Amino acid sequence: MTTDVLTLGEAMASFRVAGRIGFGRPLTPDLAGAESNVAIGLSRLGHSVEWLGRVGADPFGPEVLRALRAEGVTVSHTVVDETAPTGVMFLEQRTADLTRVEYRRAGSAGSGLRIDDLWPTAMDRLRVLHLTGITPALSDSAAATVARAAELASAAGVLVSLDVNHRSRLWSRDDASATLRPLLPHVTLLVAGVDELDVVADGDEDRAVGELFATGVQQVAVKRGAVGASLYTTQGRLDAAAIPVTPIDPVGAGDAFCAGLLSGILDDLDPTARLDRAVLMGAWAVSTAGDWQGLPTRAELPDIATHRQGETVR
Amino acid sequence: MTTDVLTLGEAMASFRVAGRIGFGRPLTPDLAGAESNVAIGLSRLGHSVEWLGRVGADPFGPEVLRALRAEGVTVSHTVVDETAPTGVMFLEQRTADLTRVEYRRAGSAGSGLRIDDLWPTAMDRLRVLHLTGITPALSDSAAATVARAAELASAAGVLVSLDVNHRSRLWSRDDASATLRPLLPHVTLLVAGVDELDVVADGDEDRAVGELFATGVQQVAVKRGAVGASLYTTQGRLDAAAIPVTPIDPVGAGDAFCAGLLSGILDDLDPTARLDRAVLMGAWAVSTAGDWQGLPTRAELPDIATHRQGETVR
Amino acid sequence: MTTDVLTLGEAMASFRVAGRIGFGRPLTPDLAGAESNVAIGLSRLGHSVEWLGRVGADPFGPEVLRALRAEGVTVSHTVVDETAPTGVMFLEQRTADLTRVEYRRAGSAGSGLRIDDLWPTAMDRLRVLHLTGITPALSDSAAATVARAAELASAAGVLVSLDVNHRSRLWSRDDASATLRPLLPHVTLLVAGVDELDVVADGDEDRAVGELFATGVQQVAVKRGAVGASLYTTQGRLDAAAIPVTPIDPVGAGDAFCAGLLSGILDDLDPTARLDRAVLMGAWAVSTAGDWQGLPTRAELPDIATHRQGETVR
Amino acid sequence: MTTDVLTLGEAMASFRVAGRIGFGRPLTPDLAGAESNVAIGLSRLGHSVEWLGRVGADPFGPEVLRALRAEGVTVSHTVVDETAPTGVMFLEQRTADLTRVEYRRAGSAGSGLRIDDLWPTAMDRLRVLHLTGITPALSDSAAATVARAAELASAAGVLVSLDVNHRSRLWSRDDASATLRPLLPHVTLLVAGVDELDVVADGDEDRAVGELFATGVQQVAVKRGAVGASLYTTQGRLDAAAIPVTPIDPVGAGDAFCAGLLSGILDDLDPTARLDRAVLMGAWAVSTAGDWQGLPTRAELPDIATHRQGETVR
Amino acid sequence: MTTDVLTLGEAMASFRVAGRIGFGRPLTPDLAGAESNVAIGLSRLGHSVEWLGRVGADPFGPEVLRALRAEGVTVSHTVVDETAPTGVMFLEQRTADLTRVEYRRAGSAGSGLRIDDLWPTAMDRLRVLHLTGITPALSDSAAATVARAAELASAAGVLVSLDVNHRSRLWSRDDASATLRPLLPHVTLLVAGVDELDVVADGDEDRAVGELFATGVQQVAVKRGAVGASLYTTQGRLDAAAIPVTPIDPVGAGDAFCAGLLSGILDDLDPTARLDRAVLMGAWAVSTAGDWQGLPTRAELPDIATHRQGETVR
Amino acid sequence: MTTDVLTLGEAMASFRVAGRIGFGRPLTPDLAGAESNVAIGLSRLGHSVEWLGRVGADPFGPEVLRALRAEGVTVSHTVVDETAPTGVMFLEQRTADLTRVEYRRAGSAGSGLRIDDLWPTAMDRLRVLHLTGITPALSDSAAATVARAAELASAAGVLVSLDVNHRSRLWSRDDASATLRPLLPHVTLLVAGVDELDVVADGDEDRAVGELFATGVQQVAVKRGAVGASLYTTQGRLDAAAIPVTPIDPVGAGDAFCAGLLSGILDDLDPTARLDRAVLMGAWAVSTAGDWQGLPTRAELPDIATHRQGETVR
Ligand SMILES: Nc1ncnc2c1ncn2[C@@H]1O[C@H](COP(=O)(O)OP(=O)(O)O)[C@@H](O)[C@H]1O
Ligand SMILES: Nc1ncnc2c1ncn2[C@@H]1O[C@H](COP(=O)(O)OP(=O)(O)O)[C@@H](O)[C@H]1O
Ligand SMILES: Nc1ncnc2c1ncn2[C@@H]1O[C@H](COP(=O)(O)OP(=O)(O)O)[C@@H](O)[C@H]1O
Ligand SMILES: Nc1ncnc2c1ncn2[C@@H]1O[C@H](COP(=O)(O)OP(=O)(O)O)[C@@H](O)[C@H]1O
Ligand SMILES: Nc1ncnc2c1ncn2[C@@H]1O[C@H](COP(=O)(O)OP(=O)(O)O)[C@@H](O)[C@H]1O
Ligand SMILES: Nc1ncnc2c1ncn2[C@@H]1O[C@H](COP(=O)(O)OP(=O)(O)O)[C@@H](O)[C@H]1O
Repeated sequence: MTTDVLTLGEAMASFRVAGRIGFGRPLTPDLAGAESNVAIGLSRLGHSVEWLGRVGADPFGPEVLRALRAEGVTVSHTVVDETAPTGVMFLEQRTADLTRVEYRRAGSAGSGLRIDDLWPTAMDRLRVLHLTGITPALSDSAAATVARAAELASAAGVLVSLDVNHRSRLWSRDDASATLRPLLPHVTLLVAGVDELDVVADGDEDRAVGELFATGVQQVAVKRGAVGASLYTTQGRLDAAAIPVTPIDPVGAGDAFCAGLLSGILDDLDPTARLDRAVLMGAWAVSTAGDWQGLPTRAELPDIATHRQGETVR
Repeated sequence: MTTDVLTLGEAMASFRVAGRIGFGRPLTPDLAGAESNVAIGLSRLGHSVEWLGRVGADPFGPEVLRALRAEGVTVSHTVVDETAPTGVMFLEQRTADLTRVEYRRAGSAGSGLRIDDLWPTAMDRLRVLHLTGITPALSDSAAATVARAAELASAAGVLVSLDVNHRSRLWSRDDASATLRPLLPHVTLLVAGVDELDVVADGDEDRAVGELFATGVQQVAVKRGAVGASLYTTQGRLDAAAIPVTPIDPVGAGDAFCAGLLSGILDDLDPTARLDRAVLMGAWAVSTAGDWQGLPTRAELPDIATHRQGETVR
Repeated sequence: MTTDVLTLGEAMASFRVAGRIGFGRPLTPDLAGAESNVAIGLSRLGHSVEWLGRVGADPFGPEVLRALRAEGVTVSHTVVDETAPTGVMFLEQRTADLTRVEYRRAGSAGSGLRIDDLWPTAMDRLRVLHLTGITPALSDSAAATVARAAELASAAGVLVSLDVNHRSRLWSRDDASATLRPLLPHVTLLVAGVDELDVVADGDEDRAVGELFATGVQQVAVKRGAVGASLYTTQGRLDAAAIPVTPIDPVGAGDAFCAGLLSGILDDLDPTARLDRAVLMGAWAVSTAGDWQGLPTRAELPDIATHRQGETVR
Repeated sequence: MTTDVLTLGEAMASFRVAGRIGFGRPLTPDLAGAESNVAIGLSRLGHSVEWLGRVGADPFGPEVLRALRAEGVTVSHTVVDETAPTGVMFLEQRTADLTRVEYRRAGSAGSGLRIDDLWPTAMDRLRVLHLTGITPALSDSAAATVARAAELASAAGVLVSLDVNHRSRLWSRDDASATLRPLLPHVTLLVAGVDELDVVADGDEDRAVGELFATGVQQVAVKRGAVGASLYTTQGRLDAAAIPVTPIDPVGAGDAFCAGLLSGILDDLDPTARLDRAVLMGAWAVSTAGDWQGLPTRAELPDIATHRQGETVR
Repeated sequence: MTTDVLTLGEAMASFRVAGRIGFGRPLTPDLAGAESNVAIGLSRLGHSVEWLGRVGADPFGPEVLRALRAEGVTVSHTVVDETAPTGVMFLEQRTADLTRVEYRRAGSAGSGLRIDDLWPTAMDRLRVLHLTGITPALSDSAAATVARAAELASAAGVLVSLDVNHRSRLWSRDDASATLRPLLPHVTLLVAGVDELDVVADGDEDRAVGELFATGVQQVAVKRGAVGASLYTTQGRLDAAAIPVTPIDPVGAGDAFCAGLLSGILDDLDPTARLDRAVLMGAWAVSTAGDWQGLPTRAELPDIATHRQGETVR
Repeated sequence: MTTDVLTLGEAMASFRVAGRIGFGRPLTPDLAGAESNVAIGLSRLGHSVEWLGRVGADPFGPEVLRALRAEGVTVSHTVVDETAPTGVMFLEQRTADLTRVEYRRAGSAGSGLRIDDLWPTAMDRLRVLHLTGITPALSDSAAATVARAAELASAAGVLVSLDVNHRSRLWSRDDASATLRPLLPHVTLLVAGVDELDVVADGDEDRAVGELFATGVQQVAVKRGAVGASLYTTQGRLDAAAIPVTPIDPVGAGDAFCAGLLSGILDDLDPTARLDRAVLMGAWAVSTAGDWQGLPTRAELPDIATHRQGETVR
């Protein structure tokens, strides 16, 4: 069986609470991780995906694997590390508009990802390798693993996708720049939020995209939140407006967007259709609760654009 | 004791979930059914109402009766069928803007409604018979019962109200047309959503209303969601804007609207006041959770228009 | 140890429900009371505050004290009355836009506040005494206590703050006027909603403020809900627009506003900065659930204005 | 339509919490009241019952009526009092073995029951009048109403049942004695807990029963909790062991027992069968949650004795 | 990859409620089905298992597959039937001791299992085929599929296990007998509750076991609930007492027991150790909530017998 | 103001779940920590107590302080450490009889306790210093702090109490022995579970107690779970049976027991009365949910022994 996409990173137990974290107020854990979100998004759209990472031998590690398997994501190379805990994070919705994350992932099993976790034939029969700028922030060995994976994949002719995903609680913009820029020669598709482009390139958006293309990147996608997104290819810039939806949970929009974009690439859609799918996926993510739980199946995908708001299908 | 209104149809247990249906995610059952919603709306406004239908002898049937009795709706002619289950439906809020219904009502007790369930004196001492376009979609016998009821009522001089309520998961528009149009000669008040008029008449709204009047219909109410509604009488067209509210649950707005309209008729309000009451009731429904749970008492009715948004009465 | 602020009034158990009050629908009790809200707001901002009142010897009285102590508010002069119950209120969110309160505080321990509850040195080492127009509505002895406290404080050179806080379910505007106006000569800072100024002064806003200044009041703050607020000082009128936030619970905005204003005074901020802090605090209150639970610490205070909506800090 | 049983008393909103009452811990209100429990128990067993009482015009009053109507209990003579609140109580399960009640019923609408609330033909076409020792504890007028009702009923040849139900938080044993003993000449069936007999008669159980028979009482039922119960008739004493069940909520066992006993009388069962039904009903009450929610229908009644523990019927 | 065990049957969405089913009381759906329970039990113990069945294309079908995949159970031959609904059942805990099931599985996708769903190589590389007496009760085609599978497996030298699992709400004992007895010649291991043996053989336990052995059965396991279990092999009868635990949910004990027994067989344990494992698994099932959710991993398995009651491992 | 008792250690956020930890299953955090449990137990009984420790500057640290302040426990010397996280633990009720703890406290703020955190006058005006065998397991500096505190207290004539509280997930019995035995010369009261005595002394119970007395210990309390407890003083051994209660949560029984014992000492009760109070407190802990939430006030203390099981006080 071929695998369309491989992605690697840290998946955690994320504890969410509506409102402030407080004694006596329940929090509900669920799977979190940018790469696993993308993997699930792709799997729901019908692609075959593998996620690679490390989890601890505590109650959370098996849950991570259970959640990914449930979604049809392959986890067969994932390592269960008996010596380190599964990463945990707490996500408190401090106000209606402001969410805060408290990480407990320093020294986690997931951050211990290392080059040995890659296996010789990892890139065979693969079409896409998806990476994010989060994994290299976790540890030196994780950074080295990402670099090696990018190298191996590009050497094997596999499309390498990199989502900048800057996490200010993990490292500074400068550290991120220093680590991510050297990866660019191996990267085919670069995805960044409108305020993240400067991590990987300099100047205003136009110049930055030019600079990225100069390193060998072939597609640049720029996420603009409720505004929409753009896709730069060698043929130029395409813009897509966001789908008008009632946003209820912004977390995971970018990952859904990546899944849509990669799905479009896997299905050989033209750039416009690819961007449209990305934007559709982003809209699903913001209009459903959870980081990935509300993502659509292939059949559901168009529904978010074709029904009027508040409609009941019965 | 006289009964102001009789309505008949299927009432079910409706299981609702906030977000996707999923294992481990609780759903809460409650009474659902367009006709029972109207019955409750009228009862809360102080009218005496009877609901007629069939329920199963399982845990849900008695709950349907309990809920209706609690609301002061008479259920004394309702049949408990030992041989068929109470209808069940699942209502999943798939995105913030899109709700999906999954019915389990084929072969239900409720869909087994039959002419024998009408009793000889059903139309005596009645002022209104309220019907919907849902019941005839359930089974041949249910369709026949609706037809017979309309006939008997109009013969007895009882005002017959029909809400088109097209359910695309139950039947096609063509089937609905073929079944509902023959009822029109017995119908006094026809209620339809702006996109449902074509089920019962042809052409644009003006022509369609004309056609309806030609069959003997005397009032046509057109529901326009967040825009408001119109009422056509022999004196012409009246429009009412929707009451500005924060919508939190659109389900049941149309039924509340019907209850308001019929209440206005029972209270001999003039058409403008009748339409105003209908529009008030629709606003209550969308601004409260549940299909009918938030409907107002007679005393509360005006409150939704007279308080500023976010007001705390203390 | 000095206490920056003393406030007195009734604190209750407030039972909240999302939606209608109904059998089978859980309500969650929590601390409520305008003065205790202000006390908590100030304490979170780092000021030392004492709350004075009376609670019953039932399950709710100790909870009131527990909640206040948890927040670092001193309750050492509070009386536990073995002969009267702790006040209780029910708060039902009747529609998305309309909340209704049902009080059970007649004859409560809290309403039995009396002059004896003030102690000889109460005003020593105090900088602010905060009063509201609610306490005098509770009983004659409570009104007398408020009057005596205002008198003693102003005599001792303590800044007296009075929030009009008209409660129509407790007394009429006329009764409120008759009771509150005589307090004005002792009041330094008067806070009122835009529709409450007429309780304490006559004419349009300008004239009313003039009249208040004439009685000796030195600052008048006018709350304007989602619009913002104004502060009148001897140097004239300052306006501040509300911070744009997603409002999820309007209850407590005015109390948070007072806490912000008093905090600014305690920190010797200039009037503009004082009003800004008040407006920031009001925004926190409306954008978080509960009457006081979401109020910010000193460190969090600016966050509501400096992050974009929907931002996740991670 | 005849009514088999009339009962009168106070019905309240009872707020229950699992564990301690505390801020932040939800409580769920539901209908409570010894007489309404009996009414529901009888209605579920198929008897026609009316409950008479007074409720307030607040959110709780209509809920009381809704709950009773849902259960098929007639409430047509119940008064909605605009001037007094519906009684409220809080029920905290302080330890696994100890439950504490906090009443807020002084001055409640329900305690204002008065002789005028009885209507001239109240006792016509009635077979049983059921009274409890709680109602006379509420107010002088309530006590007078109970006395008058007992008098009228016994004069009309209606069986009068009295459950002693001593409530130590409402009155002393001496006060209860002084009020209840004069009722005995009108009482046919006296029900008491094994430690309550001394409220209505003196000496050990044998002597007390003898004394009761001397006043005209014809049946005495003694409830013995997990041990079972006894029924004294003119033919002597009958004992029934309790049905072995897993007890999960003791509240309401005595009321269920009364309903079973009265049901047996209404069905003309012999004393043994009557007591058996009472004991079955008591077992249902203790083995289901809530004061009355778990009571069986006529068809379910035997199930508690005929299935083995832990059985799943499928 | 080899599969140790194949099992086939119907898996459903089971809605559970603590207490009575009632409007307003949430129910939580989860995976249910005797065969899928066994599959999960085996997978948790480290065996490779496939489950075969049919699910509908509604919200519940994908959830069934998701739950099984999460647990590492292969579902690759399962059919998603677009024309029939996924079976649903409701499980109400009517009293502390009595649970009632309400099925909605007539005409379900799962009951449509047919011989074509078996694939030519289904029995290759298999060690055990596990069947239950529930599947043949669902439909003629399901019964035929079970029969064919048993035949094919025994022909292929695969151990065939059959759990009688009589469901009185699906068929009579006589019908079950008539359908199951002809399967016995293909059955290697027969599992039955102590009161179910008479479905497949006559006489007292001894005679019945003899009769079973005469048909070719080689092992007979008899489940005795809280008492324990027995295993009859050609060497005679072995008894094992139940592990003393606090039972909190009896559902699924028998399936866990089967999983333990089959696990022992797969691991080539001797009969005593096999029975011990079965009894351990049964104890886990009854001492944890849910039909299968609490089943142990291989590593956890002994814990239930080695810790004292109420122990906290920290 | 004098402080009766000082205790020091780590207090954490403990996340509890009923059943297995799993994604989608809510966990509720609350204060946990053996020493803080004892502090709360003592405070509820009316003693003045200070708790000393370190918490992080994350959402959990302030909650720890809030919970302790709510309970009237002084925390004025507690350090908020900006550089280390507040300890966290997860508590899963794996079966009805087996609870498992997963710690995330390595490197926590709390484990960073150091000698500097003691202040010069810490032991002045103190009557009891309470220590546990948990704190020294956390880090070398924590162990040193405990040792120094014991030394200072005994030098100041303060009663030093030590609860062995062996935590096998933190260290081995040998390590515990090596660290705790040297403390004994400073210890006045030694508390141990029946299976923990061997950590601090050798031989059977009698010999071990003798050995402890030889080191200078003056009282030894031995906890025996559901059996009860013993107290050895110089006058000999006293035994007390456990109070018969329905146990619902064993966590915290030992800490409650310590609080009762110390309360008895502070109130100068004789050994029998002291042990009785300890045993009463243990019964409260096991018969209420949570580690400390259900502990009684002084007034409630006797209730657990004086009411019959299942009693409702009303
Ligand atoms: N409020 C919204 N409404 C509709 N679509 C949105 C909304 N927010 C985000 N999206 C879509 O999701 C994409 C990614 O979201 P964005 O917020 O930019 O990413 P991130 O989650 O990485 O911050 C956007 O480009 C847009 O297409
Ligand atoms: N968002 C809304 N705000 C205020 N009133 C509304 C809103 N939606 C519906 N209503 C009122 O309820 C009536 C019926 O609602 P509509 O959505 O048209 O019916 P239906 O529920 O049958 O689709 C409308 O005519 C309008 O008066
Ligand atoms: N929707 C809102 N958005 C932002 N700030 C608000 C909002 N509502 C109130 N505030 C702030 O809180 C202050 C007090 O609120 P207001 O509603 O006027 O008081 P009250 O709660 O006493 O009725 C306002 O002056 C404003 O600064
Ligand atoms: N634990 C129990 N198990 C079975 N039946 C019980 C149990 N407790 C009470 N009952 C039945 O209910 C009847 C009334 O219960 P009891 O506790 O005596 O009344 P009350 O609720 O008035 O205190 C008893 O006589 C007995 O038949
Ligand atoms: N209360 C219990 N305590 C311990 N083990 C039990 C208990 N109930 C069942 N078991 C174990 O589970 C096995 C199967 O349970 P049983 O109830 O007989 O099956 P079924 O669920 O099919 O009715 C029993 O043989 C026993 O080993
Ligand atoms: N099941 C119980 N019933 C009544 N009292 C108990 C029970 N379990 C413990 N206790 C009381 O609490 C005390 C401490 O409990 P124990 O379990 O021995 O301590 P720990 O929590 O430290 O393991 C016991 O000595 C006893 O007095």
